[in-house]
Amino acid sequence: MEFRLIDRIRERTAQGRDDVRLGIGDDAALLAVPEGQELAVAIDTLVEGVHFPRDTAPADIGWKSLAVNLSDLAAMGATPAWALLALTLPKTSVESTQAFIDGFAEGFAQLAQPHRLALVGGDTTSGPLTISVAVHGFVPPGKALRRAGAKVGDVVLVTGTLGDAAAGLYLLQHASRVEAGDARREYLIERLNRPTPRLAAGVALRARANACQDISDGLLADLGHICAQSGVGAEIDSAWLPRSSALLGLFDETSARDFALSGGDDYELCFTVPAARVADVQADLARLGCGATRIGRIVEGEGVRVREPDGSWLEPGRRGWDHFAA
Amino acid sequence: MEFRLIDRIRERTAQGRDDVRLGIGDDAALLAVPEGQELAVAIDTLVEGVHFPRDTAPADIGWKSLAVNLSDLAAMGATPAWALLALTLPKTSVESTQAFIDGFAEGFAQLAQPHRLALVGGDTTSGPLTISVAVHGFVPPGKALRRAGAKVGDVVLVTGTLGDAAAGLYLLQHASRVEAGDARREYLIERLNRPTPRLAAGVALRARANACQDISDGLLADLGHICAQSGVGAEIDSAWLPRSSALLGLFDETSARDFALSGGDDYELCFTVPAARVADVQADLARLGCGATRIGRIVEGEGVRVREPDGSWLEPGRRGWDHFAA
Repeated sequence: MEFRLIDRIRERTAQGRDDVRLGIGDDAALLAVPEGQELAVAIDTLVEGVHFPRDTAPADIGWKSLAVNLSDLAAMGATPAWALLALTLPKTSVESTQAFIDGFAEGFAQLAQPHRLALVGGDTTSGPLTISVAVHGFVPPGKALRRAGAKVGDVVLVTGTLGDAAAGLYLLQHASRVEAGDARREYLIERLNRPTPRLAAGVALRARANACQDISDGLLADLGHICAQSGVGAEIDSAWLPRSSALLGLFDETSARDFALSGGDDYELCFTVPAARVADVQADLARLGCGATRIGRIVEGEGVRVREPDGSWLEPGRRGWDHFAA
Repeated sequence: MEFRLIDRIRERTAQGRDDVRLGIGDDAALLAVPEGQELAVAIDTLVEGVHFPRDTAPADIGWKSLAVNLSDLAAMGATPAWALLALTLPKTSVESTQAFIDGFAEGFAQLAQPHRLALVGGDTTSGPLTISVAVHGFVPPGKALRRAGAKVGDVVLVTGTLGDAAAGLYLLQHASRVEAGDARREYLIERLNRPTPRLAAGVALRARANACQDISDGLLADLGHICAQSGVGAEIDSAWLPRSSALLGLFDETSARDFALSGGDDYELCFTVPAARVADVQADLARLGCGATRIGRIVEGEGVRVREPDGSWLEPGRRGWDHFAA
C-alpha cells in the first residue's frame, strides 16, 4: 500500500531532477546539494479538525500540506527542491481510501509541478488523518532571509491581502452567514484551502529585506516574532492593512480588521526593508503578481502596537492562532 | 508551546555542529552538506496503538521514533547528522503534557547524543499521538548501500538476533504468559521499545555488501524487497536464524522461528555479500558488537524460500507486518 500511494504522488511530480541521485524505493533517498548552496529545511504538520475542517476536499488537503511548508521556504528566500511526506490515514473502505489518495496526490502535485519539486521519500501509516511534510530548498550561503535583522526605521510590508483565510474558515463554520455560490465566499474559502506560498517574492527579497517571516499564525503573532528576534518593536496602522474586496464586501470593518490582524493561515510574507528601498521592492513584487503593501514601521522598544484611524492605540485581544494552546 | 517542546529536545542534543548554519527558531533551518558528500534522507511515522502499545513510556517513544529512522540511514551506510521532528500530542492536562514532553525528550536525546545528531526543526500540533521524524545523513557519492545489487551466489547475513521485538510485543499483549520482572521478558520488551540502529555496521558494510536493508517489517518481507529490486531469489535456512537466548527460553521452536521470520521491528540489517568476503565482514561486525550471522544465499529466480531442518520447504503464512493493510 505504502508504495502505491507514494508512487501515485511521485509519478505526478518532478522526475528529472539530476540532484536526486536515488529517489523513492530504497531505505533512504540520496540527494546532491548543488555546490555553493546551503540547504533550507522545514517540517510542518496538518491535523484534521485542527488545521483544516473535517470535510475539506482531499485535493485541497494535498495542496495545503505542501503549501504551508513551501511558505516556510519562501520566508527564507529559498528555492524549493525536494519533499518528504508522512501521511497517516484512517482505515476506511478501499474505495474511499483510493479516492482520498487520488485527490490528495492531485492537489499535492498541482502545487509541486510548477516548482519542479520532487517527492523523494514518504511513509504511509494508518491512524487519525495527519499529514507531515518536510521540504528542502536551496539558498546561496549568507543570503537567506531571517526573522532577526529588522532595524529601527525599517518599513514593514506584507504581500497580498490579509484575513482572507480566517474569514473563509468563519464562513465554513457559519454556513448560514453567506449563501454557497457567492463568489466572494468562494474566493475566501479558496484562500483558506489553497494558499499560495510566495516563493518568487521570497527570492526577490533576498538582497533587500532586513527581516522576513510568513504569516501562518496571524500578523500580530508573526510580526511579533520578527520584533522579538530582532530586539525591536513595530507600529502598524490598521487603516493600511491590505484587505481583499471579498473580505470587505462580506464583513464590517471591525471584523475585517480582526481577521487581518489575528487570523492565521494567510501564508503571505511579512517583511521589513529600509525606507529607501521600499519603492523598488514594491515595484518588483507588483511585477511578480502579489504586490506589497506598507503597513507600518519598526521602532525602538518591543512588541507590536496597532494604531486606529482615529489615532488611538488598539489593544488586540487575540494574539493569533495557537494550535497547541491547552 | 511549540518552541518550548522542541527546545527541550534541542537543548539535550548536539549543539556544536558547524554544518548547522542556523538552527531552530526561524522559518527553516540552514544547513551545509560537507563537500563531496551526498545527503541520505528518510522519514518514518509512529502512531500510538499501531507502532507502539498505548502504554509505552514516553522515553521509549522518543527513542524509538528516532531509532526507526536512524535504522534507515544505517541500511544505506550513511552517517547521521540532522533530524526534523513533527509531534502531534493529545490535549491533556498541563502536567501530563509536560511529563510526556520530558520523557520523550530524554529518550530522543539518549539516542541522538552518541551520534552527534542535531535536531534542526520541528512542529508540534495537537491531535492523536503521532510522531514523524525525518533524518538526514551523509554518505560518500556512489558508496551508499542499496536494496538492488544482490547477486546470485551472495551469502545472506543478518546482524544481531531476530524475532525479539515481536516476541516482546506478544508478551505485552499476553501479560499472563510470563511474569513481569522475568529478565528474559524484560529483555525482549526492551528490544521492542529501544531498538538499536546498526549505524556502525552500515558504514562498515559500505564497500563490502552488494545489497542491504533494515528489518522493519520482518525478515521475509524485507529480504523480499532485496530480491525484488535485485531480480533474484533467496533461500534461507530456518535453523540458521540467530535467536536470542531470551527468545528461545520463553518460546518453543515454532513460535521463535515465526517471530524471527515474520516479526517486525527488529531493526537489524539484512545484507548480502560475495562468499569470499563473509569471514572478513563477520570479523568486522563482531568487533562492532552486533555480530553477523549467515542465514542463506542468493539464488536465481524470485522470492524468499525457507528450508526447514528436515530439508522440507516452509511456506510461511505471514509475510511480515503491514501496518497499512486495509
